[in-house]
Amino acid sequence: MTYLRDVASRPTGVAYVGNATVEVRAIAPVAPGPGEVQIRVAFVGLCGTDLHIVHGAMDARVTMPLIFGHEMSGTIDTIGEGVVGWAVGDPVTVMPLAWDGTCPACLAGHEHICQNLDFIGIDSPGALQTLWTVPAHTLVALPAGLALDVAALVEPTAVAVHDVRRGEVAAGDHVVVLGGGPIGVLIATVARHAGAAVVIVEPDPGRRAQIEQLGHIAIDPRSTDQAAWVVEWTDGAGADVVFEVSGAAAAVAAATGLARVRGTIVVVAIHGVPREVDLKQVFWRELRLLGARVYERKDFETASSLLADGVVPSELLITRVVPLTAVRAAFDDLEQGLAMKILVDVAAEEDAT
Amino acid sequence: MTYLRDVASRPTGVAYVGNATVEVRAIAPVAPGPGEVQIRVAFVGLCGTDLHIVHGAMDARVTMPLIFGHEMSGTIDTIGEGVVGWAVGDPVTVMPLAWDGTCPACLAGHEHICQNLDFIGIDSPGALQTLWTVPAHTLVALPAGLALDVAALVEPTAVAVHDVRRGEVAAGDHVVVLGGGPIGVLIATVARHAGAAVVIVEPDPGRRAQIEQLGHIAIDPRSTDQAAWVVEWTDGAGADVVFEVSGAAAAVAAATGLARVRGTIVVVAIHGVPREVDLKQVFWRELRLLGARVYERKDFETASSLLADGVVPSELLITRVVPLTAVRAAFDDLEQGLAMKILVDVAAEEDAT
Repeated sequence: MTYLRDVASRPTGVAYVGNATVEVRAIAPVAPGPGEVQIRVAFVGLCGTDLHIVHGAMDARVTMPLIFGHEMSGTIDTIGEGVVGWAVGDPVTVMPLAWDGTCPACLAGHEHICQNLDFIGIDSPGALQTLWTVPAHTLVALPAGLALDVAALVEPTAVAVHDVRRGEVAAGDHVVVLGGGPIGVLIATVARHAGAAVVIVEPDPGRRAQIEQLGHIAIDPRSTDQAAWVVEWTDGAGADVVFEVSGAAAAVAAATGLARVRGTIVVVAIHGVPREVDLKQVFWRELRLLGARVYERKDFETASSLLADGVVPSELLITRVVPLTAVRAAFDDLEQGLAMKILVDVAAEEDAT
Repeated sequence: MTYLRDVASRPTGVAYVGNATVEVRAIAPVAPGPGEVQIRVAFVGLCGTDLHIVHGAMDARVTMPLIFGHEMSGTIDTIGEGVVGWAVGDPVTVMPLAWDGTCPACLAGHEHICQNLDFIGIDSPGALQTLWTVPAHTLVALPAGLALDVAALVEPTAVAVHDVRRGEVAAGDHVVVLGGGPIGVLIATVARHAGAAVVIVEPDPGRRAQIEQLGHIAIDPRSTDQAAWVVEWTDGAGADVVFEVSGAAAAVAAATGLARVRGTIVVVAIHGVPREVDLKQVFWRELRLLGARVYERKDFETASSLLADGVVPSELLITRVVPLTAVRAAFDDLEQGLAMKILVDVAAEEDAT
């Protein structure tokens, strides 16, 4: 694969245009205004939320055409008025959140889940374009030596860091991760790095094989009695922390039976419909269910370090790198579970793949 | 009503004998063994759990005939071998929990929800008898000046103290209590004493009238849009803490729409079947759902003080006092919502009512 980097003369982007249709199109770059920075995008990771967008599942929320993409890396290309502390060429990623700073959640210090949050790449234009203009406050510096392809994993890793921090995972804990997609695997990796013993519950055999390649225990909930397995694994106590990352009703039903007395269940997945939860078990064991959404700046910084230090096995997580023109096909593969993480090389020529 | 106190010559008790049948019967008192104390029972409060027992809903758990009852007051009658620190005649209540001390929950410091907990009055004989023998470690001294009838409210008040402590209610918080039975009203009272603004959501008009008599705001979820009401009440933020005390599916469905970003929902009620929970809202607002069950010793001590200090309006909570022979009829009244709390005067003669 050959990358032809200098394509600035014809900026290109990928837009969701409605009707479950994605188009590669020429883009007129937006010059950075005061407080903004224009980034030359290097790599963009495709994630489950992007898949929801292109499926049309978020049509009620997004404004079309939408240039999506929010897991990215790049270098600073142009700096807007009043922006200090950054230089052209700096390698960066973006924490794609813009809050209003005035709602009750922001005033209480929870800006990352502002009641009027603008998630950049969903609620406003995202990273799948040659030149991307963002508020300077969203920039996160990349550590020296962190390759730009690997740096596109900072955002999903920050999700996992946030989830593990929210669940207060401690050394010696027993942790169960329900769902072995990219976020589940990243949570398992971050929790293991924190000193926890980890098991991932994943019904798909292909995913279990990948998970085991990453050095994690994987069990199949269809052939293993997961509650009995966890009881034995924890000498009768139950898991300290359970992460629900699958989005499946069956996993929610099982989760309350896996946690120890006063244990924690972190709800990471988005459940589009209400789910049956065994509240009697929540009461009986005084369980704690916590929602965990996106991240805060310190999660991004921790994630960057974990990737730079090689804690997160990026080479095993990145299934392949494709050009902008292959985004539609990449989603097909993700949908069929044929890939863990696919990166888009935004500057690559179509014929370079 | 005249109480004839000296009935020790013919000890009596109330037992659930199966088939939704309650019997008043002569009881052979159990002499206190080493580490035990025999209490002359004064008053016993009837609660929702007792109602479940006499309905037969807990037949799979209880051993029949079961002398039930666990909200009580009395005086020490006989002290077993090796028990120190107590004197005959001391006024006491009982924290009716016996833990094994060896299970993972106990070893982690959560004895009150021991994995093999013996809830005295459910799993072993309870207080509805003239002379009741219990482990000395369950005794809780009553403050001077706390009348024995009022002291029978220490146990349900301790539940409320535990729930409010678990929810980390702080001064200035906005608190919603879903369900205005005795525990809901006690939670509201304890939360208000902690400095919170409180509203109780209760569909029954008779209960709402009682709640308002206790000085609390009560709203009817059938005629008021509770979510809109709470948004306005909290200037757009949502409630800091929501207590689910109703046991109703509709209340669970509503709860996630009432809490603020990072707000807390405390699950106090026992839900016999899994309930639909809006986990997307749990995720979106990073909510926290906490189970809260029974109490710890410090909750009993706080509850005793709150009652001795008149914080809990016992005169409004105790609907009436009945003799042992009227227990069956009392349950009928409780079932029909005709009473908030009914106490049994264990020493009263039948003809004294």
